[in-house]
Amino acid sequence: MTPIKIDHVAVVVDDLPAALNFWQNALGLPLEGRETNEHEAVDIAFLPVGESRIELLKPTTDDSGIAKYLAKRGAGMHHLCLAVEDIEAAMAHIASQGIQLINETPRQREDGTRYAFVHPKSTGGVMVELYELPKGKV
Amino acid sequence: MTPIKIDHVAVVVDDLPAALNFWQNALGLPLEGRETNEHEAVDIAFLPVGESRIELLKPTTDDSGIAKYLAKRGAGMHHLCLAVEDIEAAMAHIASQGIQLINETPRQREDGTRYAFVHPKSTGGVMVELYELPKGKV
Repeated sequence: MTPIKIDHVAVVVDDLPAALNFWQNALGLPLEGRETNEHEAVDIAFLPVGESRIELLKPTTDDSGIAKYLAKRGAGMHHLCLAVEDIEAAMAHIASQGIQLINETPRQREDGTRYAFVHPKSTGGVMVELYELPKGKV
Repeated sequence: MTPIKIDHVAVVVDDLPAALNFWQNALGLPLEGRETNEHEAVDIAFLPVGESRIELLKPTTDDSGIAKYLAKRGAGMHHLCLAVEDIEAAMAHIASQGIQLINETPRQREDGTRYAFVHPKSTGGVMVELYELPKGKV
């Protein structure tokens, strides 16, 4: 049930080329891929580091949750995602300790990854995401 | 020169027992150690996850940099630390790309770890720390 690793740290940015100038050009991380997530209304850049990834998120509209976060808090780290073996077991144990989950059952991405968010009010201020990676992708 | 891994994610908290209830009891991360850093005026709890660590920072005074961050921004992720092989080479390359470092030469901790901070204005809002771990500790 213990998390296996940091899967990714998500960073909200207001200028993706400027952010890539730091993370890719200055720091030297490889740019593994780019994609647009229509559902979340963000352009995403993925940069692997060790067993983890930095995910840069640039809102594509003004009214998404991430756009509102950017307007209110400014650019910076948005959430921390930990990979777990069994997301139902992890969620049940977390809830049993009085911690509030944002979604009570796992959601699923197109690639098969199942995920859930823990409410930052329950974690000491950090939006924590849990990932259960498809078998063979851990 | 490319960073090797996420060494740690540092989280500022206003209530260390409540934060440990989440990270240790609910999430199941082991508590590897506790220490007080007099210089930074913080109590720190270390919780390893994969090749990385979560570091919970609780200010011990009201006037430190981290206490002021907590008062202004609230609890949450404070900085992201990446391990590098050669900190001078990494810092020189970062500076050559027009990115502002907070300290221009590496500082050193008692355990031999050398470190430097990149200014969040240059990274897209994230306080990034670089660590060069002592040989044999990577």
